[in-house]
Amino acid sequence: MNNIIKVAIIGGTGYTGLELLRILSQHPNVKIELITSEPDHVGKTLSDIHPYLHGIANFKLFSINEIKSRDIDVAFLALPHGISMKFVKEFGFNKFNIIDLSGDFRITEKEYNKWYQNNHICPDYIDEAVYGMPELFFNDIKEAKLISNPGCYPTSAILPLAPLFKAKLLDPSTIIIDSKSGVTGAGVKAKQSTHFPGVNENFLAYSIFSHRHTPEINQVLSYKSKSTVNVLFTPHLLPLNRGILSTIYAKPIHRINKNKVYEILKSYYSIHPFVNIVDKLPGVKDVCGSNYCNIYADVDEDKKIIVLVSVIDNLIKGASGQAVQNMNIMFGYDQVTGLKALPLVP
Amino acid sequence: MNNIIKVAIIGGTGYTGLELLRILSQHPNVKIELITSEPDHVGKTLSDIHPYLHGIANFKLFSINEIKSRDIDVAFLALPHGISMKFVKEFGFNKFNIIDLSGDFRITEKEYNKWYQNNHICPDYIDEAVYGMPELFFNDIKEAKLISNPGCYPTSAILPLAPLFKAKLLDPSTIIIDSKSGVTGAGVKAKQSTHFPGVNENFLAYSIFSHRHTPEINQVLSYKSKSTVNVLFTPHLLPLNRGILSTIYAKPIHRINKNKVYEILKSYYSIHPFVNIVDKLPGVKDVCGSNYCNIYADVDEDKKIIVLVSVIDNLIKGASGQAVQNMNIMFGYDQVTGLKALPLVP
Amino acid sequence: MNNIIKVAIIGGTGYTGLELLRILSQHPNVKIELITSEPDHVGKTLSDIHPYLHGIANFKLFSINEIKSRDIDVAFLALPHGISMKFVKEFGFNKFNIIDLSGDFRITEKEYNKWYQNNHICPDYIDEAVYGMPELFFNDIKEAKLISNPGCYPTSAILPLAPLFKAKLLDPSTIIIDSKSGVTGAGVKAKQSTHFPGVNENFLAYSIFSHRHTPEINQVLSYKSKSTVNVLFTPHLLPLNRGILSTIYAKPIHRINKNKVYEILKSYYSIHPFVNIVDKLPGVKDVCGSNYCNIYADVDEDKKIIVLVSVIDNLIKGASGQAVQNMNIMFGYDQVTGLKALPLVP
Amino acid sequence: MNNIIKVAIIGGTGYTGLELLRILSQHPNVKIELITSEPDHVGKTLSDIHPYLHGIANFKLFSINEIKSRDIDVAFLALPHGISMKFVKEFGFNKFNIIDLSGDFRITEKEYNKWYQNNHICPDYIDEAVYGMPELFFNDIKEAKLISNPGCYPTSAILPLAPLFKAKLLDPSTIIIDSKSGVTGAGVKAKQSTHFPGVNENFLAYSIFSHRHTPEINQVLSYKSKSTVNVLFTPHLLPLNRGILSTIYAKPIHRINKNKVYEILKSYYSIHPFVNIVDKLPGVKDVCGSNYCNIYADVDEDKKIIVLVSVIDNLIKGASGQAVQNMNIMFGYDQVTGLKALPLVP
Repeated sequence: MNNIIKVAIIGGTGYTGLELLRILSQHPNVKIELITSEPDHVGKTLSDIHPYLHGIANFKLFSINEIKSRDIDVAFLALPHGISMKFVKEFGFNKFNIIDLSGDFRITEKEYNKWYQNNHICPDYIDEAVYGMPELFFNDIKEAKLISNPGCYPTSAILPLAPLFKAKLLDPSTIIIDSKSGVTGAGVKAKQSTHFPGVNENFLAYSIFSHRHTPEINQVLSYKSKSTVNVLFTPHLLPLNRGILSTIYAKPIHRINKNKVYEILKSYYSIHPFVNIVDKLPGVKDVCGSNYCNIYADVDEDKKIIVLVSVIDNLIKGASGQAVQNMNIMFGYDQVTGLKALPLVP
Repeated sequence: MNNIIKVAIIGGTGYTGLELLRILSQHPNVKIELITSEPDHVGKTLSDIHPYLHGIANFKLFSINEIKSRDIDVAFLALPHGISMKFVKEFGFNKFNIIDLSGDFRITEKEYNKWYQNNHICPDYIDEAVYGMPELFFNDIKEAKLISNPGCYPTSAILPLAPLFKAKLLDPSTIIIDSKSGVTGAGVKAKQSTHFPGVNENFLAYSIFSHRHTPEINQVLSYKSKSTVNVLFTPHLLPLNRGILSTIYAKPIHRINKNKVYEILKSYYSIHPFVNIVDKLPGVKDVCGSNYCNIYADVDEDKKIIVLVSVIDNLIKGASGQAVQNMNIMFGYDQVTGLKALPLVP
Repeated sequence: MNNIIKVAIIGGTGYTGLELLRILSQHPNVKIELITSEPDHVGKTLSDIHPYLHGIANFKLFSINEIKSRDIDVAFLALPHGISMKFVKEFGFNKFNIIDLSGDFRITEKEYNKWYQNNHICPDYIDEAVYGMPELFFNDIKEAKLISNPGCYPTSAILPLAPLFKAKLLDPSTIIIDSKSGVTGAGVKAKQSTHFPGVNENFLAYSIFSHRHTPEINQVLSYKSKSTVNVLFTPHLLPLNRGILSTIYAKPIHRINKNKVYEILKSYYSIHPFVNIVDKLPGVKDVCGSNYCNIYADVDEDKKIIVLVSVIDNLIKGASGQAVQNMNIMFGYDQVTGLKALPLVP
Repeated sequence: MNNIIKVAIIGGTGYTGLELLRILSQHPNVKIELITSEPDHVGKTLSDIHPYLHGIANFKLFSINEIKSRDIDVAFLALPHGISMKFVKEFGFNKFNIIDLSGDFRITEKEYNKWYQNNHICPDYIDEAVYGMPELFFNDIKEAKLISNPGCYPTSAILPLAPLFKAKLLDPSTIIIDSKSGVTGAGVKAKQSTHFPGVNENFLAYSIFSHRHTPEINQVLSYKSKSTVNVLFTPHLLPLNRGILSTIYAKPIHRINKNKVYEILKSYYSIHPFVNIVDKLPGVKDVCGSNYCNIYADVDEDKKIIVLVSVIDNLIKGASGQAVQNMNIMFGYDQVTGLKALPLVP
């Protein structure tokens, strides 16, 4: 079990690809065997594209096809949705395991085609994909060959809600998730919506009722609660780089108090090293640069509403850190290996 | 009616005092007769305390007592709560009108003593104070001698909700207000909670279930709806200077669609120059530097939830701009006088 | 002379165009007669492109040719360099005055062709253009038909240096200008270099030895000093929206002390309302939202170096505010008309 | 040599103390034996003071005297200047090595008393202290018992200049250092000068001609150049958390070109793992979260001026990372141990 894992990062020049590189380069049991990028970049080095890596991470960029001639244990797909499924369709997951960070294998074909305005090209593989949230699906991840790594918003929403749904505490028709994300969630490519002067000193809601992470949240919570969960999800854009804070409102089925909610959350997460149940309201900076998710809870007993506040680093627990955690589990390592960095504060 | 209004700014060195100076110095019908400050500053000039005003706004700072020897039409109280009521108790509002920007005259004595942990020293004056939200209480403001200027969060919450309550559309037990404010709301004095490295690149919720603006929102909406409104209010701190965005969730009593909500809002605000009902999701920058409040609405018909998004500049429509709007109305001027500046974008 | 000035804003959807709109819409003697934009926007309204203007500044966008059928007193060209000269070549400046905010008429044809990698198409007009810096060329501006409005960096560099050069105090071979600018200087269109996560929490130098504002600074200072000034200019990008701070190092020809430098600066600027000589180190926020330039000076007598620090709002004194100041002078109004707004702090 | 180093962090609740904790907790050969804090905090845990550490770094806070009863190999002093020398005077450095991050042992007694307005209480120890900049004093550090860890600004200034001085290239009377620092350099305690709304969207110079890091830069460069170096140093405050960028202007004694400067820098730093000589202008984000210093150079051959641009993370290479690098060298480990983290970008 203590062999070196040979990994490929497919799509190494985007934010999640760079974050995989950053984490994996400190991992004691990993060798980065291959980094690929889009055709324009092939033949260049990673530091040609991202000069901050000059002299400290020298990797040549290859085309995706290079994977055929390499001996790889696991490929991380840090690709846009729509592109990941092409990779999986072409290469399968027999020669190497796959951890896909896109949205291509998270939801059913029907939901995918509706929310992503795209026809899924290998729907059979959706069923074979395991949803890579270790706190909910640890045993499945151990056996998985294809992991669908969770979305950033869903990670921040599902972790606080799942234990309460599992405890049959929540009315599934009442869930409101008011989420606020930093700008790295929008990816590495410049767009008018991420032009500095328009985002800086600004704050706005977007994609109201229509964000693609909605069906993912519903599907996982419905599965865990054995009921039909249909959340109202409102994402907002924060003028900062990293971090998601979700403020979640939910009505309990029975009268409940704060202590009982903490008891359920603490009990559920007592064996999970990356979820902290905290008793002070957390900020996104509390976890940035780390794989932690911090969760706070309170109950307004008069109004019978539970308020949950969760924070994650969207690029780590919300993407590449969780992906490495999944890799650790898949390959039989302690899940915290290479992921123990404290938050970079301030 | 077209005489010059002689104003005093009581507490001229805090953010709302500075903002009153900024707005009033452009007002065509105002003469700033007196600016007072705390004892340590008396005898200095405003630019000794705030060097950016050097050479452009030269005012000597006086003690509050100076007001006795001046001929003043209206005094703006830009004081902390608890201090404002002392001023009103001592000087009354017969010799000059008062527009108080603190929380001292907004809510009933009973609620005040509970939420502000303080015994009100002149509770009789609370009844005489008019809540200075022109879009709701225009006629009362015209006749008022003592105006209690609304809080910043309440302005952002009440403006979108009041017309819908007035139309008897909303279930008063279902209101959730998820608000996000810039840091100037915390005032001019440095505290550990406003230390730059702790706020920058951070985002957090605070004062959950316990913020003092909660009873103010409840009181005004209850009055307007003739029912008992009891909102759940969650404030958050944004890493930016100016602006509040409130995302509001409310259940309608009857089935309703988005068009109908817009119809009610547009109809209500058609005669109010500072509230824009907008059809694109607004950001706080859309109104910063201006006295506008922009409001967006949507309805999830399946889940029967109305979502409202409002934005204001917390120091202008949320404080000093609204105060000047009140002054205009009190003194018979067009309410927009001196307040027509476009937002400073970007 | 107290007639209304009828203005056209040519290029109304960029940052300097929007800033002209913001300032001119408060100007008591101006009517905005026409706003043009690029072909794709023609027929839309300004608020279609910039939704924050919805309901508060309703202008239809026209093509440039519309100017032929309008009665215009002055056209502000808020166009990219290269496009401005086409406009001037086509329409001339007989039917209306022109204030050009681009770099097309600031420097000699020879320098233009070299630094802008472009052949000037109407070089004869360069000679007719007056450099629109009122503190240096007031009388020329009064008579001008075509004004070349100064660049943002040059404004911040020339204002502190010119009086000292005029007093024959400085060695022209020793000038180092270390400037730092906010991101609005890069314009309204998104580029990879202005992608929020790359700029936020970052700071960098750029265009070292090669920035196009270098020959402009040299030309004006050489003219004023009657010597050959050849500055070393290093621009940097600040993670904020508005503001330029220039730290300038210069060797005096003779021994000099701080008092003498202040005397020269204060004497020179005593009659100029928008330049403040300050005795505390200024920050960019001290002037943001206003047309002021604040200047601080100190002398290291041992090392015989004068240090000057200047701050401006790059979009106002560095662009649109200075342009309106020029218009006021051209049309015989007090130069401060419509420009008296205090800085928006904080 | 491969034993565990038992360390004490003296002053664990400030930014450099927290950063030592963050780095040392990932160091494979370190055990954090003791963390002390000010009297008010003794008996509490680190996470009582900094809640983000709750559940992930549980340390009890002790008084300084606790060090007497512990077996410690090295104490890091993350204390304010003036307090560090009291610790050294009381405990000496025989029982354990000391790495002092304050300014107390960096400069001569005479300079210290002048610049720090304080009488040094153990001036004999200044001579015994080794200046802990491994790229300049590696061999001395190996033998040291008391290390004076460099200041943040001096690190950013000395690293680019020292090799050029060593090569006798620079005129020592011509050095201008224009530095820009993030706000964490001002420490963990809130002050009016670090109040968020005053720093955010602002940029200013401070402590012109009077910053305490000036004599430190002069002393080290004078020593290395065997001449009297007397720099002009201008610090500025950037509206961001971490990072220093220094733009340095220096006149060469002889004519020189860019290639030659690169040759000298690359040659000097070829054996030093944490200094990268880069050919693209670096930003502070390029190194934030890492122990790297990136250096860029250019030469204006006409004006005979060398421009150097350096970037560091002020809390890592400018403080705690460099301190751990010194510890590694002192204890015979590879200097990069525990310091190989890639920058956290973006």
